[in-house]
Amino acid sequence: MKSYRKELWFNTPTRMAFKNITPDVENCLVESGIQEGLCLVNAMHITASVFVNDDESGLHRDFEKWLERLAPYSVEQYQHHQTGEDNGDAHLKRQIMGREVIVAITKGKLDFGPWEKIFYGEFDGMRKKRVLVKIIGE
Amino acid sequence: MKSYRKELWFNTPTRMAFKNITPDVENCLVESGIQEGLCLVNAMHITASVFVNDDESGLHRDFEKWLERLAPYSVEQYQHHQTGEDNGDAHLKRQIMGREVIVAITKGKLDFGPWEKIFYGEFDGMRKKRVLVKIIGE
Amino acid sequence: MKSYRKELWFNTPTRMAFKNITPDVENCLVESGIQEGLCLVNAMHITASVFVNDDESGLHRDFEKWLERLAPYSVEQYQHHQTGEDNGDAHLKRQIMGREVIVAITKGKLDFGPWEKIFYGEFDGMRKKRVLVKIIGE
Repeated sequence: MKSYRKELWFNTPTRMAFKNITPDVENCLVESGIQEGLCLVNAMHITASVFVNDDESGLHRDFEKWLERLAPYSVEQYQHHQTGEDNGDAHLKRQIMGREVIVAITKGKLDFGPWEKIFYGEFDGMRKKRVLVKIIGE
Repeated sequence: MKSYRKELWFNTPTRMAFKNITPDVENCLVESGIQEGLCLVNAMHITASVFVNDDESGLHRDFEKWLERLAPYSVEQYQHHQTGEDNGDAHLKRQIMGREVIVAITKGKLDFGPWEKIFYGEFDGMRKKRVLVKIIGE
Repeated sequence: MKSYRKELWFNTPTRMAFKNITPDVENCLVESGIQEGLCLVNAMHITASVFVNDDESGLHRDFEKWLERLAPYSVEQYQHHQTGEDNGDAHLKRQIMGREVIVAITKGKLDFGPWEKIFYGEFDGMRKKRVLVKIIGE
């Protein structure tokens, strides 16, 4: 069994952002030399997500509006802010969008359906944060 | 390390639907001959889910009503529809229900608690769509 | 390839609860002797979650209040209750918080960012319930 590990770093220019990281993960897969296995991609921070959806900017605006409705930004509303933070909403948004994805590796490729792309979802951005790529297989 | 791959195809008669696919995944596991490992089951489409919950029809009606409340179908409401689509709600519903499950394989069986069943969740149905089953182990 | 399996049992004193189970999973990893691989941690019950977030009690109160708003406890509201259950809300809350996490294993450690901790999330507690830890690797 082979294993491969890499950290990807991001610093988004806005507080909330969605970035297509599929090419970065494909580069990791090539570097790994793994042909059959599983690829884990997870946010290493708890106010960010990794998820699979469509690379369509209108949909990303819909995600932003929807997440703001379900888990609104608010200075007053969250008990978490008694610690001095102001990102309670980002912890909630991340739960809806998820921490991680697992992608099958088949014949040296990410085994995806026609529209599947991997996204980094940032909910408390404008700072450096990391994503972990771990691949195991043969 | 062994690996196994299969696509399962579904075409639900309604726009939203939940289908117990546990027997299909069990068949895959038998075919794979894998005794110890991990089984990934993921929707290959971005308006569908794979998740684990209870095989109880009343609960599935509750899921439908609840998802419709959190992410309502609407022709006008979503920017995604400027591309000609009408399934913005389905992309959101899928985020709540999730893309994938990973099930442990122990002694050649899906290692489940008493009520765990795997479901295909469809949010933009009445067309052919796929689920990927990938198993790695020994 | 090595594989390791353990069940962790919990019985929370309240209906809803969040418990940091990172030390339990770390003990499993030491027992397994696995240095490189993937660790699956999943609820074996369908009204509970395993998720990664922050070990901060104010945030946990925010989670409780938020989940109660998105998927309120109600005796009347859920069709699932025609089976005699009263935990329809717990099935919905679990979908938002997720069933499972996969954690990379690197050099014999859980490969975590600075604030990542694994939680058992209980939504229908005050009874004995299980979490599965399955580790594969080398």
